[in-house]
Amino acid sequence: RYEYVKSFEQPDLLLPNTWIVIRIDGKGFHKFSTKYSFEKPNDRRALDLMNAAAKAVMTELPDIVIAYGISDEYSFVFHKSCALFERRSSKLVTTIVSIFTAYYVHLWSSFFPETPLSPPLPSFDGRAVQYPSMQNLRDYMSWRQVDCHINNLYNTTFWALIQIGGLDAKSAEKELSGSMAADKNEILFSRFKINYNNEPEIYKKGSVVLRDVSGSQYELVEPGSASEVIDEDLVKTVEQVALSKTQEENDKKRRAKARITVQHVDIIKDEFWERRPWLLSNKPGKIPKEP
Amino acid sequence: RYEYVKSFEQPDLLLPNTWIVIRIDGKGFHKFSTKYSFEKPNDRRALDLMNAAAKAVMTELPDIVIAYGISDEYSFVFHKSCALFERRSSKLVTTIVSIFTAYYVHLWSSFFPETPLSPPLPSFDGRAVQYPSMQNLRDYMSWRQVDCHINNLYNTTFWALIQIGGLDAKSAEKELSGSMAADKNEILFSRFKINYNNEPEIYKKGSVVLRDVSGSQYELVEPGSASEVIDEDLVKTVEQVALSKTQEENDKKRRAKARITVQHVDIIKDEFWERRPWLLSNKPGKIPKEP
Amino acid sequence: RYEYVKSFEQPDLLLPNTWIVIRIDGKGFHKFSTKYSFEKPNDRRALDLMNAAAKAVMTELPDIVIAYGISDEYSFVFHKSCALFERRSSKLVTTIVSIFTAYYVHLWSSFFPETPLSPPLPSFDGRAVQYPSMQNLRDYMSWRQVDCHINNLYNTTFWALIQIGGLDAKSAEKELSGSMAADKNEILFSRFKINYNNEPEIYKKGSVVLRDVSGSQYELVEPGSASEVIDEDLVKTVEQVALSKTQEENDKKRRAKARITVQHVDIIKDEFWERRPWLLSNKPGKIPKEP
Amino acid sequence: RYEYVKSFEQPDLLLPNTWIVIRIDGKGFHKFSTKYSFEKPNDRRALDLMNAAAKAVMTELPDIVIAYGISDEYSFVFHKSCALFERRSSKLVTTIVSIFTAYYVHLWSSFFPETPLSPPLPSFDGRAVQYPSMQNLRDYMSWRQVDCHINNLYNTTFWALIQIGGLDAKSAEKELSGSMAADKNEILFSRFKINYNNEPEIYKKGSVVLRDVSGSQYELVEPGSASEVIDEDLVKTVEQVALSKTQEENDKKRRAKARITVQHVDIIKDEFWERRPWLLSNKPGKIPKEP
Repeated sequence: RYEYVKSFEQPDLLLPNTWIVIRIDGKGFHKFSTKYSFEKPNDRRALDLMNAAAKAVMTELPDIVIAYGISDEYSFVFHKSCALFERRSSKLVTTIVSIFTAYYVHLWSSFFPETPLSPPLPSFDGRAVQYPSMQNLRDYMSWRQVDCHINNLYNTTFWALIQIGGLDAKSAEKELSGSMAADKNEILFSRFKINYNNEPEIYKKGSVVLRDVSGSQYELVEPGSASEVIDEDLVKTVEQVALSKTQEENDKKRRAKARITVQHVDIIKDEFWERRPWLLSNKPGKIPKEP
Repeated sequence: RYEYVKSFEQPDLLLPNTWIVIRIDGKGFHKFSTKYSFEKPNDRRALDLMNAAAKAVMTELPDIVIAYGISDEYSFVFHKSCALFERRSSKLVTTIVSIFTAYYVHLWSSFFPETPLSPPLPSFDGRAVQYPSMQNLRDYMSWRQVDCHINNLYNTTFWALIQIGGLDAKSAEKELSGSMAADKNEILFSRFKINYNNEPEIYKKGSVVLRDVSGSQYELVEPGSASEVIDEDLVKTVEQVALSKTQEENDKKRRAKARITVQHVDIIKDEFWERRPWLLSNKPGKIPKEP
Repeated sequence: RYEYVKSFEQPDLLLPNTWIVIRIDGKGFHKFSTKYSFEKPNDRRALDLMNAAAKAVMTELPDIVIAYGISDEYSFVFHKSCALFERRSSKLVTTIVSIFTAYYVHLWSSFFPETPLSPPLPSFDGRAVQYPSMQNLRDYMSWRQVDCHINNLYNTTFWALIQIGGLDAKSAEKELSGSMAADKNEILFSRFKINYNNEPEIYKKGSVVLRDVSGSQYELVEPGSASEVIDEDLVKTVEQVALSKTQEENDKKRRAKARITVQHVDIIKDEFWERRPWLLSNKPGKIPKEP
Repeated sequence: RYEYVKSFEQPDLLLPNTWIVIRIDGKGFHKFSTKYSFEKPNDRRALDLMNAAAKAVMTELPDIVIAYGISDEYSFVFHKSCALFERRSSKLVTTIVSIFTAYYVHLWSSFFPETPLSPPLPSFDGRAVQYPSMQNLRDYMSWRQVDCHINNLYNTTFWALIQIGGLDAKSAEKELSGSMAADKNEILFSRFKINYNNEPEIYKKGSVVLRDVSGSQYELVEPGSASEVIDEDLVKTVEQVALSKTQEENDKKRRAKARITVQHVDIIKDEFWERRPWLLSNKPGKIPKEP
């Protein structure tokens, strides 16, 4: 009698053969970071907690290929061939948001042992975006890392002006208004003897979460020879899918077992991707050697 | 240079003037309930934790009108005039899923002090559904409460057969296969002296979460006279919106202050809705007296 | 082998229980009207052709309840209970656009016997919009008729200034810039002895296309008593649907047989809708008498 | 006052950087072909009319790269970099359906001079599908051409059994039930002395509509060397877009001027695409020579 209401549920399947990025953002984290006295411009404990939660998400969802985090945001990438939850958008995005939140709250006391959480609790919203080509995906990742750099250079200089230079927030903001990257580097160095290049990589580069495939059947290969491994079209015909099912199950198990690591490296340049061809191919293969 | 990737984000605004239901579901809770030895057929602590998390969600989001929970699922209802997050579907659903998860994990130790959480942590997925008319919304709520009744009667009988009757799961399942409600009531009463009507309301009716408006400017009215208060068309013209902005802000504040209560009552019959006209009208008004 | 490409087709079902409006618009009709020397401000032949095409669309699609046209645009309304093409948006909108175009081209020579069509041919684009409530639908219809009035008053005055007053387009535009309705009425009357109220109704009110139910089982009723006939919730339960299937088939046949008429009347005031309760109820009933 | 109804229009932008296929289908053409006594299994006049309408669509919309038609269906392909109508789905699909219908009706009398159209008129529905990769697009095109082959072989044999063999429809259907391609070829040859390979290409291969770029700045190149011309990523950065705007305008004009031809050739094999690199690159370039 009442079941007709189910017919109001509308499908939200993402387009096949597109890279899926789920980006989550802390809700009201400016206020939240004040409440828990996060250190400025970067609070290492807060970033480590974000990274720990991201690692947990990747552990529970082996379909995620790579993740990238800065500040209170994290982007999770599903391979374009991913079929998890039939690619239902709301299912994918809510599952990631929920697992991430669960670990963020659960692990809080390990990273902030002296300041227990109290309501309102930290929470995150999220959205799914589809990228048709590998280049679009890499440009998305580059966009986030460029943002990381721009924000961190600004914040580092802004807080140096305040914490060391003794300015108030308004004056610091005015001082930096319209300044270029070179200007900020110059302020840091000439006034505060800070060489921005020597700042910790985690602040300058953000955090890349990856599966560590060492010891697996991946082999080192020369950089440059890797591109051929990348198969631009992984949507398979019906027969291929049937034949390769066992293979896929094996891949999934291997991914599930791989140790997950957090790195603070450049993901804009080709080298990062060329040395890790399995990220984009989603297939085991040879690992390029250091150039 | 990379910012073009933002153009791949697609809008997901829900249709104006429709009731929005966000339903969340525990992910893999069958396994989860085994891991933490939930009592069968109902674990009161687990339900109380669900309800506490739902209350927290309603506290943080005053736009939610009512919520209804059974087992490991919860439905949250936004009024059809709701404009939160511009009605962006993914924003609404992820925010609710995230807040709910945060409190579920955070409050776990209060309800299960002897069994601390360990990975994999509990998590929830969610989806948004739109209902154009009040009747559709009420039918949705009725659908969930009918489901609650059907499932609870089955589970109560199934576990009585096992826990008191000494059957194994297979035999219990076989015994109940094809049985009607009356048959299950009969089994419970004749074999186990259990009168299903005397079972706790929380198990039979589920949990309704509401704002308590007593002591506010709502006034008691006779049931039956309330229906006129319900305004089927709250989408206002531009001028009306401008004029009523202060009014809306006041309403929002009053909702935010109202104490939130959990009740275990029938929401299928008209009486529940007629006595609480503000639920559907989203406006302060008179509260009907008990008939 | 290639059939996997079908999986890229994404569903586009419109929400159940919402009114569906398909609005179509002439593509580049400004240029088109110049090419075929349409009379200004209104070309009666062009409007009659639009109306003839709209009547043909309603004849071929009995599910359409009412249509309303002004200038080179037409809006077709499907009842909220409509299930045509499973409510697939692209199917509904392309079918209407195609039938309308077919008749516009086919009937052209009947209305413009002396100016045969030549490429580029007239064409129309279209879109579907959903309205959850009867009030939203009526406000949509009112919006279009208000637009008709505003545009026609402007155009009538603009072309009077040019055709009778001898102004060029630029001067006429300047003269009318910032003028109110009363100003335009005044210009028309004082300078050109034109009483706008006496202009043909088809120009002032646009065209409403309706099924003529006279001689059917509809009966006259007093205005005012009709509103009760309107049933806000026509989404039926499964049983009701089964029981009323024959009834629906009969209704559909009756609608298919009804003569379709074009009227130039006010659709903003309540009276139009109160006297034709079957438009909103989609059920046969009594026809109100003239007040 | 009524303008709020515009807020119910929901955006339907197709994802950037995907190939857009608009497929249109004749509505009720089985009945329609009977009404106008189309020849079986193929009516050359009807196919020529379809092709003439498709050519007109491509003439009016220079953004279309290629089109492919069989029976009463046609697929139109927009390049993945296409920005026409901001990639609004309903606008793209209704415009194509409307232009196609207009020409189909307008040109009817040229192809069927002895059987004038009468209501109900021919009409078409349509839908948009997005394909992220070149391979997906080619597989779509291959899927349609394989369908053409399968249907035509079946229909040719079916109608030979009836028209020459004297069977009724039921017996012919039964005879062919479960038969393989080889069986049908055998029936045609052994019973009716028909060599299927000698059937007209238009029936076996369908119709490909292309812009003829001969005499333009395209130059012949060797097959095999063409692949490098194909640029998988045409979504450009903001600066590139600005710089190449004139270039794009020029390309568009050249496309608009190019003569449009209909060919009946294999589009499944690589050769077709390798010899016409500009189809997939959307850029002028060298035309490969015959191998």
